[in-house]
Amino acid sequence: MSPPESDHDQLRNLMQRYARAADGRDVDALRTLFHPDVTIDGARGELGLEPWLDSMRRAPAFPVSMHFLGDPLIEVNGDEANLDTYAVVYQVADRSSGQQDLTLGIRYVDLAVRADGGWRIRKRAARTVWTR
Amino acid sequence: MSPPESDHDQLRNLMQRYARAADGRDVDALRTLFHPDVTIDGARGELGLEPWLDSMRRAPAFPVSMHFLGDPLIEVNGDEANLDTYAVVYQVADRSSGQQDLTLGIRYVDLAVRADGGWRIRKRAARTVWTR
Amino acid sequence: MSPPESDHDQLRNLMQRYARAADGRDVDALRTLFHPDVTIDGARGELGLEPWLDSMRRAPAFPVSMHFLGDPLIEVNGDEANLDTYAVVYQVADRSSGQQDLTLGIRYVDLAVRADGGWRIRKRAARTVWTR
Repeated sequence: MSPPESDHDQLRNLMQRYARAADGRDVDALRTLFHPDVTIDGARGELGLEPWLDSMRRAPAFPVSMHFLGDPLIEVNGDEANLDTYAVVYQVADRSSGQQDLTLGIRYVDLAVRADGGWRIRKRAARTVWTR
Repeated sequence: MSPPESDHDQLRNLMQRYARAADGRDVDALRTLFHPDVTIDGARGELGLEPWLDSMRRAPAFPVSMHFLGDPLIEVNGDEANLDTYAVVYQVADRSSGQQDLTLGIRYVDLAVRADGGWRIRKRAARTVWTR
Repeated sequence: MSPPESDHDQLRNLMQRYARAADGRDVDALRTLFHPDVTIDGARGELGLEPWLDSMRRAPAFPVSMHFLGDPLIEVNGDEANLDTYAVVYQVADRSSGQQDLTLGIRYVDLAVRADGGWRIRKRAARTVWTR
């Protein structure tokens, strides 16, 4: 049997699951990563979970994306954890249609809470640091 | 004395050792990271260890490379572990000879096994997600 | 109560704190990450802590930076630890003034020591692998 994952390891996996679900446009997988009462403050303003998932469900502007995340800076306080994660998001264009790539430097500032035997994101602020 | 590294920490180090051995074109260091019966499914099709190492031994197309790896998504099941790792590989050109840089977004999907007191890659699929 | 962070987790956080302090040009935060007798061998030669902090205090050449760090390769030996960290540093230009972006592939090779109940960088060599 394997020893249980540490909180830090679970939180790192939470972020990596987010990247894969976002790149796969997998709305059901995304839903499992967030607390139902999450608020997500990003490019479209502050949204609750279902409106934000709706925005992810829409046809993406780019055919391929890669959410490339750095190691999160993690601080665990009992059943809460603060995560601060640098990311470079590659939005890869379909050049044959004249589209151009978009690359974003993003900083995810998350509050996660222990819930249902795991961790979920309870509050997120996604700040775009640079775009090219 | 230091406490023993956790499985997650050992697996993260395994991936980082891969990056350094690949960038250093260090075939002997690469060999220690893989199980002798590994299959590596990548740009050149599915190869066993020695044919794959031969392909790494050949003169590289680019003078400098950097295998920049994200945090692996890790799942440990006893003596096996699944790793799913995003990477951006910078192949840095010698511009004086007219060569152009190549940057690849890659996803390494690995099965690692506990062997000889450590972890080794038993199966790898390297999928190129984008190139520029 | 949360279990104490492992040495590996503390060392990963040390590197992530470095990234945020460097990008925020926060000299006081930077000072807390280093041992007072650190030597930092980088683009400006080998410097002690205060001369190096002075160099960070000067007006930056670029308005925005992002020190995007990979997972460090970590080896802990009692009260010392070796870290080898790949990084891509985005120096984001003010294009309106004709400036151009600078991106650097850097490898931080650090010796950290246990001190004051945490870890601090005792010796750093920052090697630029590529620039674009």
